[in-house]
Amino acid sequence: MEELTEYTQYLESRISEIDFDREPRNLFDPLRYFLALGGKRMRPMLTILSGSIFDLPREESIHAALCIELFHNFSLIHDDIMDEAPVRRGKATVHTKWNSNIAILSGDVLFVEAYQQLAKYADARLPLLLKRFNETAIEVCQGQQLDMDFESRKDVTELEYIEMIRLKTSVLLGCALEFGAILANQDEETRSSLYQFGVSLGIAFQIQDDILDLYGDPELFGKQVGGDILSNKKTLLFLKAKKLAAQQGDSRFDDLLKMEPAKDKIEFAKVLFEEIGARNNTLEVMDSYYQSAMQNLKNLEEKGLKVSPLFKLSAYLMNRNV
Amino acid sequence: MEELTEYTQYLESRISEIDFDREPRNLFDPLRYFLALGGKRMRPMLTILSGSIFDLPREESIHAALCIELFHNFSLIHDDIMDEAPVRRGKATVHTKWNSNIAILSGDVLFVEAYQQLAKYADARLPLLLKRFNETAIEVCQGQQLDMDFESRKDVTELEYIEMIRLKTSVLLGCALEFGAILANQDEETRSSLYQFGVSLGIAFQIQDDILDLYGDPELFGKQVGGDILSNKKTLLFLKAKKLAAQQGDSRFDDLLKMEPAKDKIEFAKVLFEEIGARNNTLEVMDSYYQSAMQNLKNLEEKGLKVSPLFKLSAYLMNRNV
Repeated sequence: MEELTEYTQYLESRISEIDFDREPRNLFDPLRYFLALGGKRMRPMLTILSGSIFDLPREESIHAALCIELFHNFSLIHDDIMDEAPVRRGKATVHTKWNSNIAILSGDVLFVEAYQQLAKYADARLPLLLKRFNETAIEVCQGQQLDMDFESRKDVTELEYIEMIRLKTSVLLGCALEFGAILANQDEETRSSLYQFGVSLGIAFQIQDDILDLYGDPELFGKQVGGDILSNKKTLLFLKAKKLAAQQGDSRFDDLLKMEPAKDKIEFAKVLFEEIGARNNTLEVMDSYYQSAMQNLKNLEEKGLKVSPLFKLSAYLMNRNV
Repeated sequence: MEELTEYTQYLESRISEIDFDREPRNLFDPLRYFLALGGKRMRPMLTILSGSIFDLPREESIHAALCIELFHNFSLIHDDIMDEAPVRRGKATVHTKWNSNIAILSGDVLFVEAYQQLAKYADARLPLLLKRFNETAIEVCQGQQLDMDFESRKDVTELEYIEMIRLKTSVLLGCALEFGAILANQDEETRSSLYQFGVSLGIAFQIQDDILDLYGDPELFGKQVGGDILSNKKTLLFLKAKKLAAQQGDSRFDDLLKMEPAKDKIEFAKVLFEEIGARNNTLEVMDSYYQSAMQNLKNLEEKGLKVSPLFKLSAYLMNRNV
């Protein structure tokens, strides 16, 4: 994936060039700090790759890519306040390093900076870009609210969970991909295929993330393993296990809920979810979304579009150390 | 001001038609609640009036007007969290009635709703609208950050204070007015005159607000009188009094700072600021910005534009029960 490495370096370089050396310091210093924490830059990469299908130079799609990345970081800064998360990518979150007020306000500014990147396309493409971006931004907020609502609910269904992750994380991938097509003045069918590809890939990716949270290699996963289990988070894996335990009359799921948040709880869940079939069932759902994403790509390929970089990126994203 | 009453009713009606009857309830109910709290609707009124100068029907300028009003309400919801304000317009603030997380997230959604109003102008005017709006939104955040920074600073100057209120409150009035000119495809000179008129009027209006905070009629002012004095807020009135006291060797200003926040502190400040000349000096500064605003209107009038509704609105705003 040499191509990706080169794009990542390009993205890092362009992100570092964004001018956050501005006053008041308490408003912009947190942004420079947070953007420098890194990340996979997967979302802006999707915009660049999507544009490249239509021979759009990366210098042309970069502002849309940066819009997506800045928006993503804005949502992380605000989510971290709401989730009371002390650490992000191994460093203190903005509200921890500064305070909540500064995190709210610098987040707000970052949101506007995302729109400023979009405003650089001051031509006939702007209305479509803005419409898609607005709709996506509202959906991401809806997803975050549902995620918070689910914490206190006991009757969350699998479909509700999928809808929540579709809104919270997947539509932004769809938006990132559709941006490339909008910038290249593609018709609605092409735009829609890329959008749907992104949404399905995003759902598959998030379900994989939930599985990795329990079964991932701690050293490779980069996050604490088992965090979801310790907090009884209602992921698809958890909901599948709950349903299967009820069907099989297996009381171990109730035992799990009562366990103190400690290492043996994680080990207990790993064995239980495997034996009860929850891991496999979840992998099947993940795969169905992945196949759906691939079908969208194949449709585009049949139209003669050069989508091979997106096939490669998908495989790269979904084969990471399961 | 019959014309204004009619416009206000029109605005109220259009605001009430915005669809906040959406899921999740915790995200949209706070918006319906907050928008229904009312307010003068002065900002969207400026957009409608500005458009009317160029014979733009209000049905054409309404979305830009709503964009301004929604943005204003977004900023109030987030500011109320930061200021820990329990009450707004006599009712509980969003973070008090719900919680801070819901206030952050529903504020974020309202911000996007503002952009969605703008996106309704899906034509050649959109780039200019978006650019002005983005710049304004960033400046409003800068102003709010400066306001918070000033709380812990002892060396705030009069110029810094004016710059803070220019950013925090006045540029939005300028933006509201320029929107009308952009929508009517006016040249840069006309747009700029309207923008500058709004900024100067906004500064005059805010300084008047600071004076009314101490000298206003409690029943007519609608807010607690003396709030700024009780918290030693560094308004222009306060900074003028500080400077004049130092020049005149009057130790009463230091006495004021040491007083407990109670009713006699407010009475003490009223007398002191009057006797020391701070009230008059502040009124002079206010008037200079008001005259500057009027000059911008006169320039537009000389170009043959029908700016009389803006003269009327300015007089109406600045003669309110001083």
